[in-house]
Amino acid sequence: MNKNDSIKKIYSLCEHDYNFENEKELKELLAPYKEGAIGIAQLNPIVGNLEYNAKKILKYIKHAQNIGLDLVVFPELALVGYPFGDILNRYPNFADENIKWLNQIAKMTEKTAAFVGFVDFDTENKDKICSSIAILQNGVIQKIIKKSDKNASVVINNKKYLIVSGDNGLENIDRNCDVIINCCASIASENYNQFQILSLLSKKYSTPIVRVNQVGAIDNFSFDGASVVFDKNGEVQAFAKTFEEQFFIVNPDNNLGKIYQSTEMYNQCHQKDEAFSLDYEKDLERTYKTVIQGIKDYFCKNGFKRAVLGLSGGLDSTVCAVLLADALGAENVFGISMPSKITSNESKTDAQQLAQNLGINFATLPIKDIVESANTSLQGLFSNIESRWSGRYKESYTMDNIQARSRAVILWGVSNEFDSCLPIATSDKSEAYMGYATINGDMSGGFAPIADITKTKLFALARWLNKNREVKNAIPESIILKRPGAELAIDPNTGKPLCAEDALMPYEFMDEVIWRIENKKECYEDMLSSEFMYERAHKISKEQKILWLDKFYKRMNVALYKWSILPPSINVDSDISEKVEYKKPIISSKINFQSRTEEEIRANLNS
Amino acid sequence: MNKNDSIKKIYSLCEHDYNFENEKELKELLAPYKEGAIGIAQLNPIVGNLEYNAKKILKYIKHAQNIGLDLVVFPELALVGYPFGDILNRYPNFADENIKWLNQIAKMTEKTAAFVGFVDFDTENKDKICSSIAILQNGVIQKIIKKSDKNASVVINNKKYLIVSGDNGLENIDRNCDVIINCCASIASENYNQFQILSLLSKKYSTPIVRVNQVGAIDNFSFDGASVVFDKNGEVQAFAKTFEEQFFIVNPDNNLGKIYQSTEMYNQCHQKDEAFSLDYEKDLERTYKTVIQGIKDYFCKNGFKRAVLGLSGGLDSTVCAVLLADALGAENVFGISMPSKITSNESKTDAQQLAQNLGINFATLPIKDIVESANTSLQGLFSNIESRWSGRYKESYTMDNIQARSRAVILWGVSNEFDSCLPIATSDKSEAYMGYATINGDMSGGFAPIADITKTKLFALARWLNKNREVKNAIPESIILKRPGAELAIDPNTGKPLCAEDALMPYEFMDEVIWRIENKKECYEDMLSSEFMYERAHKISKEQKILWLDKFYKRMNVALYKWSILPPSINVDSDISEKVEYKKPIISSKINFQSRTEEEIRANLNS
Repeated sequence: MNKNDSIKKIYSLCEHDYNFENEKELKELLAPYKEGAIGIAQLNPIVGNLEYNAKKILKYIKHAQNIGLDLVVFPELALVGYPFGDILNRYPNFADENIKWLNQIAKMTEKTAAFVGFVDFDTENKDKICSSIAILQNGVIQKIIKKSDKNASVVINNKKYLIVSGDNGLENIDRNCDVIINCCASIASENYNQFQILSLLSKKYSTPIVRVNQVGAIDNFSFDGASVVFDKNGEVQAFAKTFEEQFFIVNPDNNLGKIYQSTEMYNQCHQKDEAFSLDYEKDLERTYKTVIQGIKDYFCKNGFKRAVLGLSGGLDSTVCAVLLADALGAENVFGISMPSKITSNESKTDAQQLAQNLGINFATLPIKDIVESANTSLQGLFSNIESRWSGRYKESYTMDNIQARSRAVILWGVSNEFDSCLPIATSDKSEAYMGYATINGDMSGGFAPIADITKTKLFALARWLNKNREVKNAIPESIILKRPGAELAIDPNTGKPLCAEDALMPYEFMDEVIWRIENKKECYEDMLSSEFMYERAHKISKEQKILWLDKFYKRMNVALYKWSILPPSINVDSDISEKVEYKKPIISSKINFQSRTEEEIRANLNS
Repeated sequence: MNKNDSIKKIYSLCEHDYNFENEKELKELLAPYKEGAIGIAQLNPIVGNLEYNAKKILKYIKHAQNIGLDLVVFPELALVGYPFGDILNRYPNFADENIKWLNQIAKMTEKTAAFVGFVDFDTENKDKICSSIAILQNGVIQKIIKKSDKNASVVINNKKYLIVSGDNGLENIDRNCDVIINCCASIASENYNQFQILSLLSKKYSTPIVRVNQVGAIDNFSFDGASVVFDKNGEVQAFAKTFEEQFFIVNPDNNLGKIYQSTEMYNQCHQKDEAFSLDYEKDLERTYKTVIQGIKDYFCKNGFKRAVLGLSGGLDSTVCAVLLADALGAENVFGISMPSKITSNESKTDAQQLAQNLGINFATLPIKDIVESANTSLQGLFSNIESRWSGRYKESYTMDNIQARSRAVILWGVSNEFDSCLPIATSDKSEAYMGYATINGDMSGGFAPIADITKTKLFALARWLNKNREVKNAIPESIILKRPGAELAIDPNTGKPLCAEDALMPYEFMDEVIWRIENKKECYEDMLSSEFMYERAHKISKEQKILWLDKFYKRMNVALYKWSILPPSINVDSDISEKVEYKKPIISSKINFQSRTEEEIRANLNS
C-alpha cells in the first residue's frame, strides 16, 4: 500500500462506527507516523453517569494503547459530562466518586498517556470544586492541572504539551511548547466563536493547537463536537465529524489529520450580522442535525425509545413526526389523528398520508365524545360560578382549549400505558413567543423538538426535508401550502377555521421581530426605525407596523408563564443555557417596552 | 405630650398603612430628633415596572422632605426590583430608561437627600451594567456609587455616610464615618446570615449600621424585609416589620428607632444545625407569612385576583384553600369538589364543610362522564396500539391519571372563562420529590402555593392555622386525621383508596431525607450511617431503611422532569433562586446515588 492509500485507510477507519477489531491493521498503518501522534476522543458523555463515561474513556485509552499512540485526549469534564447543574449539591459524594473512577482508570493506563477532564476539589477550599485535567500514564495520575492553572505543561515522550482547559485560558499562553492541547466542553455557538482566535494563536506562536470538544445533547444544550486541529501556520489540519462521537488520529508533526467535516457550513450559518431573510437554506442541515441529536440523546440517555404525538395535518406536528421518525425509527413513532368537529377532511387525509409516507404507526381517534362531556359539565359549572363571580368573558378560548387538552389527555394516556414512550409537545418558537399554545394541550409533552424553531424556518425545513431525505416528498405539499392555524375555532367572517396569522400577525413579520431581539439585541424603538423585510415586500403603513409591534411585545410579556412550564426542548437558534432564552421574572410582565421621553416621565411622576 | 409619648406616637405612625395625612404632626414630633434622622423605605417593588417603582420612591422622598428628614434610604436596585433575570438582554432600552426615571426623580428632590438603588452602566464597558446607588439631593444626582466602589462616602448635613451596596462589601470598610448605610436586596436566608456580621462590625467600628432591604415576593423569591439598624454597640436599635412595605424613622445619634418585629423568631427558625424533628411550631408563622406574601404578590403584580382550585377533602388542597382565602379574600376563591367513583363520601362532605368554614365559593361537579368518555376512547386506542407495539403495562396509572387530568381540564376551563382567575396546583414538596403527582393534573396550575412545603410540615401548619386564624378550627379535624392519598385508585388489599405512604414510604421518613439533603448536604451513605428520628420511634430494620432510601433516590432521580414543568411557587424552605432546589440535568437521571469502593469500580471497569 502506498503512503497515500495507507493514510486514506487510517482516515476511513476513523470515519464512522469506530471498529476496534482492526487495531492490528491500524497500528501497522500508523507506524510511520507514530511519533507525536495524538488520538482525539470526541466523547458523548451521559452527564452524571460515571460508570458509562469511565467505561467509554477507558475503551478509548486502551484502543490508543493498542494502536501505539503517545497520547489520547478527552474533552473538559469528560468523566462527569457538562453541564452538570447542581449535581454536586444534591449528591455530595459525587466529586469523591469521580475521583475514585479516575484513580481506577489511571491504574489501567500503560505507556500511552491520557488527558482526562474531571472534577477536582479546590486546593485551598475543599468545599469548592474545579474543572481539572488529569494526566494519566503508566498506571498512575502523573499530574493534575486545574482550570485556573496557567501555562501548565507536561512532557510525554520528549514532547512538551501545554494544556488549556476551556475557552478562557487561551490568552497569554506560554509559547514554549510543542503542542497546545485545548480540552473543552463548549456548545456550538461558543465553540465556533473560538476558531478564529485558535487559528491566530497557532500562527502567532508557530505551534499546533489541538482542540477536543464534547459532542451530544444534554437536555436543551447541544454540543456538536467539531473538534479541530490547527497546524502551526494557523490552518485547519483536522476537523472531526459533527454531531457524532468520534475517535480520530492526528499528528501535528507530519500532516496526518483529516478534515472529516467542513467548517464552511458552520462559518456560514453563524454569521449573525446579516439582515433577516427567509432564506434559511444554508442553516437547515445544521438545524436538522441539532434536533435529531437532541431527540436521540434525550430519549436514549433517559431510557425512552418511543414517541406518541398528535397529527393534526398542520406544519408543526408534521415536522415533528418527520424528525422523530428519523431520530427514533419510524416503527417507534405513533401518530394519532384526533379530529374534533372543526377538523377539516383535508387535515385528516393529510395526516394519514404523512404517516403512510413516513412509515410510522397511525391511528384515528375522534375526540368528539370527550369534548362534549367536558363541555356539558363545564357549561353547568359556569352558570353556577356566574351567580357568584362577575367577569365571565363574552368571548373566551375555553372551548378551543378543551379540544387541545383532550388530545393531551389521550397522548399522556398512551405514554402512561406503554413502556418507554414519551408524548411530544409540538409547539414552535413563534407560537411560544406569542403564547399561542394551550397549557396542558399542544405545549404539553415529555419533549418539545421544535420549540426553538420559528414558523418560517419550519416551512423552509419542511421543504428541505422533502428534498434531502432518502424518501423524497414525504410531507404532502398540501400541508406546506396550508396557512397555519390551530383548527380550534371557526372564524365568524369566513366560516372556516381561524388562521393564526389573522389572530396574530404575519409570521414573516413576527419571526423578524424574534430574530431582531435575539440576534441584534434591538429594542422596540430600534425596530420602529429600521425597515423590515415584510415592509419592503408589502408596503404596510407605519400604523400597521406599530399595531403589530405592540401586539408582539404585549403578548410576549404575558407569555412568560407558558415559557416557564414548557417541556425540555433543544436549543437550535438560542445561545443560552436555559430551557428557552427567556428567564426574566414572570411578574415583570408589566414592563414598559417603549422608551419614554424625559418629559413624559416628568409628567407621569407629577400625576 | 411628654418625650416618651411623642416617640411612641412617631413609632405608631410608622407601624402600618403609612398615613401621609399626618405629615405636619410627624414633623412636629420629630423636630427634637431631626438632626441625623434617617427615613428607611423598606420597599416592595414590582420588578421591571419603572413607573410603579419610581412613583413609590418619589412618594417616600417627598414624605421625608415634608417631615424634615436629612436623608431617606432605599434598597439596592429599588428602582428596577431584584432579581431582574435577563430583562436587560431582552429590553436593551431598559437600563437607559431606568436612568431617565432616576434623573426625573432627582429633579424633584430638595434638601432631603435620597440614596436610591438603580442599574448603571459600567464606566469601562458600556455593554456591562452594575448595581449602583445614586445620591439625590437639591434637584440633582450628587454622586453615583457603584457596587464595586469600596469605602465610598458622602456628606449630608455635616454627617459622613459610608455606603455599602449588597452583602459582599462589608469587609475592610473604612471606619472613618458617622453612619454606615447598607442597601441590599437579599432573600430571607441571606439577609439573616448577615446580622451577626453587621452587629460585630458596628461594635468593632463603634459606628451605627443602617441596613435597608427589599420586601415582597418576585416569582419564587421571597424577601421578608427585616430592615435593621445596629447601634454603635452592636445592639439592634430598630427592626422593621417583616413581609410588609414600611417607612420608618431612626436616629442613630439619639436612640430613636423601634423594634417593630422581633428578630428572635427568625434567629430561631434559621438554625440549620438542629436535628430533624416534627416540631415545626416555631417556624409556622414565618412559613404562613411567606406563602401569603407569595400568593398576594404573584397574583397582584401579575394582575390576577381570583383563584379556582379542586377541593378533594385531602390535606394539600385544604391548606391551599385556607392560604388562598387569607391572601386573596374568601370571596375570590372558588373551591370545586370533583368526585370520581373512587371518591369517598367523607371526602365530599369534608370539602364542603371546609368551604363553608372558610366562606369561600363552592361547587360540586362529578367527573364521572368525562372520565368515562376518555376511558372508552382510550381502551379502543390501546388495543389498536397493542397490535403494533409491545410493552403495554400489566398495571398502569393511566386511569388514575385521567381522573386528575380531567379535574385540571375543569379548573383551566374556569380560568379561561372568567377574568383574572388562576387555577391552583396543589402539589406539595414531599410529592414533588417523589414525582407522586400527575402531569397536567394536580401539579398543573398557574401557581403552586405549597410546592416547597413538605407533607409533615403541612400537617403542622394545618393545626397551626386552626389555632391561630381568627376563625378557629376552619379545617375539619377529619381532614387532618386522614392518611394522605390521591384517591385515584383502590388498594386491592384493603378495597379502600390507596394511601400514599403505602405506595411510597412513611412521610416522616421521607421528609427527613429531604431535610438531610437540603440542610445537611448529606449523601446516601451519610443517611445510612446516622439514625433517623423515624428509626428511633419505630425500630425499623436496616433492610427496611435501605429499601426506603433506595426508593427515595430512584424516584427523586426520575422526578426531575416533573420539577422542570412545575408552575411558579414560593420558596419557603429552599434557599435558592430557581423554581425548586433542583436544577441538575434531566438526563442525569441514571446517576449512581450510592458510593462505590475502589474494588467495585475496578471490577466494573474490567467487566
